[in-house]
Amino acid sequence: MKKDFPNLHIDTLSAAYARGEITPRALMVQLKHRAIELNAEYNLFIHILDDKELAPYLARLEDPAAKALPLYGIPFVLKDNIDLKGIPTTAACPDFAYIPERSATIVEQLIELGALPVGKANLDQFATGLNGTRSPYGLCKNSVLPEYPSGGSSAGSALAVALGVASFSLGTDTAGSGRIPAAYNNLVGLKASKGLISTAGVVPACRTLDCTTLFTTTAAEASRLLGLVARRDPRDDFSRHNPAWNDATAFGAIAPGFRFGVPETLEFFGDAESAALFSVAISQLESIAGTAVSIDFEPFLEAARLLYEGPWVAERYLVAGALITKNPQAVLPVIHDVLEKAPHYSALDHYEALYRLQHLKTVCDAILADLDFVVTPSMPRPVSLADLSKEPVAANSRLGWYTNFMNLLDYAAVAVPASFMRSGLPWGITLFGRVFTDQYLLSVANTFQHATNLPLVGGHALPAPKSTGRKARNDKARVVVCGAHLEGLPLNWQLRERQGHLVSATTTAPHYRLYALPGGPPLRPAMVRASEGGQAIEVEVWELPSAELGSFLTNIPAPLGLGKVELADGSWETGFVCDGYAIATAEEITSWGGWRAWLGSRAA
Amino acid sequence: MKKDFPNLHIDTLSAAYARGEITPRALMVQLKHRAIELNAEYNLFIHILDDKELAPYLARLEDPAAKALPLYGIPFVLKDNIDLKGIPTTAACPDFAYIPERSATIVEQLIELGALPVGKANLDQFATGLNGTRSPYGLCKNSVLPEYPSGGSSAGSALAVALGVASFSLGTDTAGSGRIPAAYNNLVGLKASKGLISTAGVVPACRTLDCTTLFTTTAAEASRLLGLVARRDPRDDFSRHNPAWNDATAFGAIAPGFRFGVPETLEFFGDAESAALFSVAISQLESIAGTAVSIDFEPFLEAARLLYEGPWVAERYLVAGALITKNPQAVLPVIHDVLEKAPHYSALDHYEALYRLQHLKTVCDAILADLDFVVTPSMPRPVSLADLSKEPVAANSRLGWYTNFMNLLDYAAVAVPASFMRSGLPWGITLFGRVFTDQYLLSVANTFQHATNLPLVGGHALPAPKSTGRKARNDKARVVVCGAHLEGLPLNWQLRERQGHLVSATTTAPHYRLYALPGGPPLRPAMVRASEGGQAIEVEVWELPSAELGSFLTNIPAPLGLGKVELADGSWETGFVCDGYAIATAEEITSWGGWRAWLGSRAA
Repeated sequence: MKKDFPNLHIDTLSAAYARGEITPRALMVQLKHRAIELNAEYNLFIHILDDKELAPYLARLEDPAAKALPLYGIPFVLKDNIDLKGIPTTAACPDFAYIPERSATIVEQLIELGALPVGKANLDQFATGLNGTRSPYGLCKNSVLPEYPSGGSSAGSALAVALGVASFSLGTDTAGSGRIPAAYNNLVGLKASKGLISTAGVVPACRTLDCTTLFTTTAAEASRLLGLVARRDPRDDFSRHNPAWNDATAFGAIAPGFRFGVPETLEFFGDAESAALFSVAISQLESIAGTAVSIDFEPFLEAARLLYEGPWVAERYLVAGALITKNPQAVLPVIHDVLEKAPHYSALDHYEALYRLQHLKTVCDAILADLDFVVTPSMPRPVSLADLSKEPVAANSRLGWYTNFMNLLDYAAVAVPASFMRSGLPWGITLFGRVFTDQYLLSVANTFQHATNLPLVGGHALPAPKSTGRKARNDKARVVVCGAHLEGLPLNWQLRERQGHLVSATTTAPHYRLYALPGGPPLRPAMVRASEGGQAIEVEVWELPSAELGSFLTNIPAPLGLGKVELADGSWETGFVCDGYAIATAEEITSWGGWRAWLGSRAA
Repeated sequence: MKKDFPNLHIDTLSAAYARGEITPRALMVQLKHRAIELNAEYNLFIHILDDKELAPYLARLEDPAAKALPLYGIPFVLKDNIDLKGIPTTAACPDFAYIPERSATIVEQLIELGALPVGKANLDQFATGLNGTRSPYGLCKNSVLPEYPSGGSSAGSALAVALGVASFSLGTDTAGSGRIPAAYNNLVGLKASKGLISTAGVVPACRTLDCTTLFTTTAAEASRLLGLVARRDPRDDFSRHNPAWNDATAFGAIAPGFRFGVPETLEFFGDAESAALFSVAISQLESIAGTAVSIDFEPFLEAARLLYEGPWVAERYLVAGALITKNPQAVLPVIHDVLEKAPHYSALDHYEALYRLQHLKTVCDAILADLDFVVTPSMPRPVSLADLSKEPVAANSRLGWYTNFMNLLDYAAVAVPASFMRSGLPWGITLFGRVFTDQYLLSVANTFQHATNLPLVGGHALPAPKSTGRKARNDKARVVVCGAHLEGLPLNWQLRERQGHLVSATTTAPHYRLYALPGGPPLRPAMVRASEGGQAIEVEVWELPSAELGSFLTNIPAPLGLGKVELADGSWETGFVCDGYAIATAEEITSWGGWRAWLGSRAA
């Protein structure tokens, strides 16, 4: 592993700037030289910014106010299918190249936040490939073991972070291009939910599926970057609003008791070491207090096969088709072979594939419904450069076994380093889950990174965890009920209708009083926290989609509402509270210990 | 208008059953005879159930417990592209017919709820048409004026309710088939959000767009039926979970101050009377205390054109294509002409159309974002049977001007009677809005029906409104803030991030006390309702998507929460409350009249 480069972790670098140990200008000079030097060996760049090209971005940072920018002076690299104003975008196809008049939205956002572009990274041509060898700008070999590829298609983007030329980088991911290179190079690869990171100004592969992705050394950095850039982009018709349950405040400590899916049948193509490493990763997740649940993986794999065996390849043809027709030599033969089938797919084929996908999505969604996430290896086994020479298509296809279905099924995914193989090659897992649970997945990845405590790229140590005091949050919410919403009671249907399920029957901390409110039916209690005295009251904790909690709340009539309730284990959860004024006319029933017991006493 | 038939309004009929004035068996005998008699003139049925076919459904109702079923003995008709176990489904194409072994899910649901099927209704073949003349089972003329058509494709379904053979009926709607016949026959036609009413067991037209629909005489009946049947169906891959903000409890009184869009350019194809009637309808909506907002309608119309000029026609071909290839004579020439283009569309064409649609959807969604709904005529002008003979395709197309875009853009719509033309022909408007605002649209339609108070089919009077005491609810929620979330204060971003907007700055009713809680930053107040005394406190009312309110709530730390707050105008809205125990250690600042004033006093 190359250990001779500066630590470019975002926090470390920001701290160095704050202490005045280095300036952005000085750093960028170093990085440019390093980029040029490395490029001779790794072909990771198609274009390295010269001083003149970089000047306007550096000039912005001269303003003293710029030092407060969240990404002040943080160097990044972008894949060369992403536009940087005034610099050619090639998509690794010289005949396709054009000079954009405007940067991609994500690039504009990063520059606005203070980040500095180092250069434009090499890729598998038209982002079609998962290995990093399919480029007229040269082969990208692995950052650790030269007999392996970098992985692709975001080959140079991953290498730039893995070899210490940038703090983070931008890739793209349609079939796995943002995750496979992460696994190969000891990086975190975040393929956020479709539409969260703008694709405006990105050369499409399949527009209905494409994602812009982030490579970082840690999940905490990816969380921070995603929180800064996940905005609905009017320039991108496929952009989506990020629900606030998935904002930056959703990144936090993982509560014990999470449930994660593990495919019941795994494919390693005969690689016993990968199989063993995956078992270790499962144990590590269990040791963080999670429960592994075996799941049927066949519907995910069937969806994956639709990507290259179905009409989605027609979307790729819409990008490069005109060029192929005019000048077949402009495109690498292997890319040509993939795309030439496209014009033969009919709209009928498309709909038949879409119906099948829709069916598979209902099956896969049902599998995910009661899980917090699913874990798989990021790839079945590493493929070597020799393997790729021998079987350029088949070896590439094997890499996508655990990645190809993700965007078709509209899931979020993060590739995270899990180990090193005996050879020294990095080895990783992928966590994936329901759309808009990105920050939750990153929270798990962060906890996992601290549990494994692997060295980061360059041999740097993982920075100590920073506690925000927050719990990680996904797309579900918990609510503590103490009265008519208890299981079997008259208003429980309001939770069931919202796809709610009972998590636990427990009691509050011993600081509450219970009252029966006048009126009804239904009879309703009021549970209030006592300034002094009080006792434990029987309650139930229910979980429901966060999106359904709002209408549950608005349906609750005065004097009741939802606030925070302390449970027997000392945790605070959202639950029923009562406006104090209403207690004056209510009957105290605390001594019954719970609503059911009091109801029972009345029935008797 | 035919006035010689019994009142089959669901409530009226249920009351007659409850009083023992009639039995389901006796009613069904009457209706069968009426159906046979009418069919000779209107061709509304392809199949009328005989006594033996009806027997098992009647037998179920013999159980005394059945009388409690919500649709006990309510007669309904289903379009003959919807399966009823054991009876042929023809889709108005005899050569296509098959005998289903199981009823469609929606039919099973209705029968389970106590409803009784009368027969299977005629339709434009393969639901391809908007007029009701395209069937080998005969032409369906209008229920009021014989020189006009019934409208289609759900021709017989509409006639069955309009002519008093059923309380309600099932149609389908891909391009407008559930709305045009409603407008022609003085009915409410509910095309609910895609996926809310199952399409399992329905012959597809375009599977990605198809909706099963309801014809009723009133919006209140449609609301009740939708509330009973809107469930995720595991048999239907395109089925969707209905968010609880759109459940039956969302049907209620319309709050004044709603905003509705009106196309700035309207098309009536030269019919001045339709134009005048539409102006009257706008005035009536304004008189219910709504504000008309002029909107650009061109993007909606461009989306509409994609439906028949784009590759979606390929979906229709997947249903009838095999038959057409084998036996071109089996299909009506006009249907053949529509479908024959289908095989020539490529997957490339499909993606290009899809990208354009995605763009148009972002534009149209932005137009709808700050409106409660949009109103249009249901059709530009009525088309006569003579018009259809002259121009079978062009005249039909004109009918879809205001309907074709709806499912492509994923909106909910309800057609509602608005008037009668001088000729006596019914004339209607359509209300449409964001997905999953069906019960809100029905609430507006209900209020509109009571404002216009038109006679229902058969000349029956609109039943008096039933107040539930509930306010109509859509996909937005209001929250009253009194402290750090006020505009410009430190936590206001939590509302903005959730696409929240300020509705009004007002005060509470004069019954509140304000306290400054210890701790911070940010400083936070507690507003509590006083058992006695108290005063008005300055607050702001914000509106945000209901789906975002849950995460807003879960982020609120103890002792604060959200309950109900009484405003100066006497209304109660969801807003900040505080657990009583926390007041003991807080500083009372009621006399400042609001949080800003107190903050200002500290700054001074």
